[in-house]
Amino acid sequence: MTAVRALLHSHPEQISQAGAISRCIDACFTSVETCTACADACLAEKHIEKLITCIRLNLDCASVCTATGHIITRANKAGHRQLQEAQLTTCIAFCRACAAECARHAAMHQHCALCAEACNKCATACVDLLTSMRMPA
Amino acid sequence: MTAVRALLHSHPEQISQAGAISRCIDACFTSVETCTACADACLAEKHIEKLITCIRLNLDCASVCTATGHIITRANKAGHRQLQEAQLTTCIAFCRACAAECARHAAMHQHCALCAEACNKCATACVDLLTSMRMPA
Amino acid sequence: MTAVRALLHSHPEQISQAGAISRCIDACFTSVETCTACADACLAEKHIEKLITCIRLNLDCASVCTATGHIITRANKAGHRQLQEAQLTTCIAFCRACAAECARHAAMHQHCALCAEACNKCATACVDLLTSMRMPA
Amino acid sequence: MTAVRALLHSHPEQISQAGAISRCIDACFTSVETCTACADACLAEKHIEKLITCIRLNLDCASVCTATGHIITRANKAGHRQLQEAQLTTCIAFCRACAAECARHAAMHQHCALCAEACNKCATACVDLLTSMRMPA
Repeated sequence: MTAVRALLHSHPEQISQAGAISRCIDACFTSVETCTACADACLAEKHIEKLITCIRLNLDCASVCTATGHIITRANKAGHRQLQEAQLTTCIAFCRACAAECARHAAMHQHCALCAEACNKCATACVDLLTSMRMPA
Repeated sequence: MTAVRALLHSHPEQISQAGAISRCIDACFTSVETCTACADACLAEKHIEKLITCIRLNLDCASVCTATGHIITRANKAGHRQLQEAQLTTCIAFCRACAAECARHAAMHQHCALCAEACNKCATACVDLLTSMRMPA
Repeated sequence: MTAVRALLHSHPEQISQAGAISRCIDACFTSVETCTACADACLAEKHIEKLITCIRLNLDCASVCTATGHIITRANKAGHRQLQEAQLTTCIAFCRACAAECARHAAMHQHCALCAEACNKCATACVDLLTSMRMPA
Repeated sequence: MTAVRALLHSHPEQISQAGAISRCIDACFTSVETCTACADACLAEKHIEKLITCIRLNLDCASVCTATGHIITRANKAGHRQLQEAQLTTCIAFCRACAAECARHAAMHQHCALCAEACNKCATACVDLLTSMRMPA
């Protein structure tokens, strides 16, 4: 069990999707880490001029995933469900766009392959949480 | 002219809506400042138990506006228009929700009144940028 | 191997302490997660008035650990060693202060006990990286 | 009066250096804006290979200034003075390093000149706050 999963179990409010929430939080911050590291690795590549879009999407995706990680941590309360769904939906769009751009460079750069994988996992975790939020409890 | 507005004018890429973009960036970070400060002021209020939702929305709104400020700074490139629009739309929803919650406490707490004002201004700046992005150049 | 550890191995620049760096990055973002979640759990506690300092330190610690996670991801280059050491030293101070405050509530609140543990681990990972940075290669 | 300055005046706790604190907060987030924009402008320059260090310091400085802006917003409480001083000291080091690197490119790139100016102003605002914190009230 990850640290945040254990912590959500001791939250005084009842959290109905603690598993999906903690998986989403962990996936978001893993994506923050890989996007930040992929942007930095791209900056050191010889043909950096082909990686400008990748760097920009890496930085954008890291920013959105940071916000998602924060907001989903507070996802346990009644209400504001629509805001959480809007954030998850936007996050999915950024993660998929970043993963698609990284995938274009994956054969050449292993860091792009690994970042694409992390972004795709984050998109999946966001989709899973969205789905579980919309199901009857 | 604000610092970021001047800076966008010296960006090597052509920026078609530098005015609307820089106003949006400034409004986002002003909202980050007031939401962070309002959350802290709420923590010091005697009847904090009535302000828990306000604190949570303040923190959420600060996170989303930080991401929007970053992403819109990179809004000058061709492409990824849909991602920028998704981020602006989500940001508008959070700013309006935070402003509405702060407005509920505005008569009692001046910091909530001021935060509501900043969040509303940020929502307006996001709407203005969305509108100018969708107009033919 | 965590995602960021694997990614650092494919960085085009040689990274001399990839193990210590990736452990520090992971510990920083775990601390971001637990501090954010502990602050939210504290907000829902009945005797919140005793937890105000804890919430503030949680939020401060999350902010510092986010910055450290970003900066250490770019720690592989020659130069700027002094900046990285300054950031690590400041991060250690915040993690220890947050852990100490959380520890005061650990018997009562399991989320504080878990957050203290994560902050202490982060401080240790920062100390380990500082030590390895100062050793002759 | 800026939004955050007005807000700090309505904070329920007494804030002894509201002027210096709000100037520091505003300078931090202006630096976040210019560093983020300068990094993006550098990415679009023809001779980007000379600007890699500048981009990395821009991103680092933006991260540290974000943390400082958050922490100084909570600077009004008794205690934790040492943590705030540590954060300000680290922030000054990053702002000066970023300003120095940007200054190297200022004759060629106006965005670097403007970013150097904002980082220097932020360093000065942090020094001023540090000084006022250490003076007898």
